[in-house]
Amino acid sequence: MIWICFAIFLGACFGAGATGGLFPPGVWYARLQKPTWTPPNWLFPVAWTTLYICMAAAGARAAVSEGNGIAMALWSLQIALNGLWTPVFFGLRRMKLGLLVLSLLWLSVAAALVSLWQVDWIAGLLFVPYLAWVTVAGALNLSVIRLNPGETGRAQEN
Amino acid sequence: MIWICFAIFLGACFGAGATGGLFPPGVWYARLQKPTWTPPNWLFPVAWTTLYICMAAAGARAAVSEGNGIAMALWSLQIALNGLWTPVFFGLRRMKLGLLVLSLLWLSVAAALVSLWQVDWIAGLLFVPYLAWVTVAGALNLSVIRLNPGETGRAQEN
Repeated sequence: MIWICFAIFLGACFGAGATGGLFPPGVWYARLQKPTWTPPNWLFPVAWTTLYICMAAAGARAAVSEGNGIAMALWSLQIALNGLWTPVFFGLRRMKLGLLVLSLLWLSVAAALVSLWQVDWIAGLLFVPYLAWVTVAGALNLSVIRLNPGETGRAQEN
Repeated sequence: MIWICFAIFLGACFGAGATGGLFPPGVWYARLQKPTWTPPNWLFPVAWTTLYICMAAAGARAAVSEGNGIAMALWSLQIALNGLWTPVFFGLRRMKLGLLVLSLLWLSVAAALVSLWQVDWIAGLLFVPYLAWVTVAGALNLSVIRLNPGETGRAQEN
């Protein structure tokens, strides 16, 4: 049953991750000033694919454990917030709102990590790279806001 | 503990539902041909708020029950897909891709309903209005595609 859970959680990850393909960074993002430590473009899909596998494995391990209620609720919360960032940042180009979403995502991932660890320490450990990556993403989002003060988002069209 | 789970699941619902405020239908959608049975605009936020409360209650009831693994995984899957439809339909204006997302959402909600019911029949029952509403939304999406054959989505901008 753990493999069925893994497959379903992986589906949830790719559901949230589909926004990455639907709202690509494009020329707009390429033209923005970015910090020198910005990870190379090729790393993002590689990192996310790896993280999705870890996240799904963590979810599946907790799903088959007892006393998993809060951990499962937090897993759901983080995936809902995970899928929200890309449409806000690359779709609407609202960088400050993107930072708010990332901050909430960071909190939910940190809470999920702690809660998963209490259920199954390997599940908690599998969330460590995810929290690290979201920390980097948050720092990058913040830097891009500071380096591009003139960007105010995409005008709402009708 | 069930109330903490309820609050977290409700947060996940509003995380996914935030897309509704960020990608509003606007003039583009108002101008589309719609079927005569289209629900009035005011009903959509009322319906979704009610559904979110039912969905969070279902998640919380299952979260504190034993043998909840697959039900919890499916709850996560449906919320990831739930948050995807609005950016695709109203953000990108890709109506056919929206229908694909809604079809996958329908399947995940139906599977979650069955799986929740096996864990706690009240949790399953709380998903019945959700499945009914997604069925209506799917029929509306399909009708709008048929009634507006010239609409091909928003051009990708840079």
